[in-house]
Amino acid sequence: MAAPCIDPELIAHAEHVVAALKQAGSTVVTAESCTAGLLAAVLSHVEGAGDVLHGSFVTYSKANKSAALGVDPELLRRAGSVNAEVVRQLARGALERSPADLAIAVSGVLGPKPDEDGNPVGLVYFCCCSRHGELRVERRDFGAQGDDVLRRAAILEALRLLAEP
Amino acid sequence: MAAPCIDPELIAHAEHVVAALKQAGSTVVTAESCTAGLLAAVLSHVEGAGDVLHGSFVTYSKANKSAALGVDPELLRRAGSVNAEVVRQLARGALERSPADLAIAVSGVLGPKPDEDGNPVGLVYFCCCSRHGELRVERRDFGAQGDDVLRRAAILEALRLLAEP
Repeated sequence: MAAPCIDPELIAHAEHVVAALKQAGSTVVTAESCTAGLLAAVLSHVEGAGDVLHGSFVTYSKANKSAALGVDPELLRRAGSVNAEVVRQLARGALERSPADLAIAVSGVLGPKPDEDGNPVGLVYFCCCSRHGELRVERRDFGAQGDDVLRRAAILEALRLLAEP
Repeated sequence: MAAPCIDPELIAHAEHVVAALKQAGSTVVTAESCTAGLLAAVLSHVEGAGDVLHGSFVTYSKANKSAALGVDPELLRRAGSVNAEVVRQLARGALERSPADLAIAVSGVLGPKPDEDGNPVGLVYFCCCSRHGELRVERRDFGAQGDDVLRRAAILEALRLLAEP
């Protein structure tokens, strides 16, 4: 029998988030750079996800951050992809382009090397934003661990932020 | 030690795709409904993915298919989400909103129940589209298997289509 496509432990963490969003009557869209769609996929595995998940904008390249979500190209040139202003623009851009009540954006460096702008492996920014305004921007430095360890850390942190009131 | 976030067998299949796209000088964006971002996430795990992957539009809800990718709401009302015309509009919408050369769209029913429009579990449509025109629309009926078996089948089929010339 094949292994599950996604580690069931990640799905278990997402169950609380889907339940909390459903309880609050909120819907969500994700804007993902380094996690590249895995956050939305994890949420989609939970039964009843269809009631709360609208989808995701995965903006893996800088060009797509601007094309798909309207991130200022000059900001990307000047400051790179991994900073507070970029995650803000990713989250706001996702809210503008979807019917969701909440957006969560994730942009960071999973490694194995620092990114092209010199941001260190393990640095990840998050922004959680609602139609009523910005809820939170968070900077986490998870340290120079393996890329899959960092991927998991980024997903779990994003789920934690989404489950907060 | 934690399990990998994504089954490494899926990543292994994606390695050929990233190599083929790199060889062809092509870049890709995905438009995902039932796979919900996992296809883009799988591609992103391959070393060098940054050279070929722009990202993804995950349109899990019908409302987001229209809001994020411009799928005709009347078509969705009349014909549901799982048909040739919807995957065409998803793929074209993704190409219009990203800098990618190629788009692959996936929409289907992973179960455990038929979708709200009565489409059976295991039915999945794919569309591969380039800036020069439509390359292929494919309808696959994988049968009423478990959702994770179907998820894997959909991802592998999408990767196969992307690796074709």
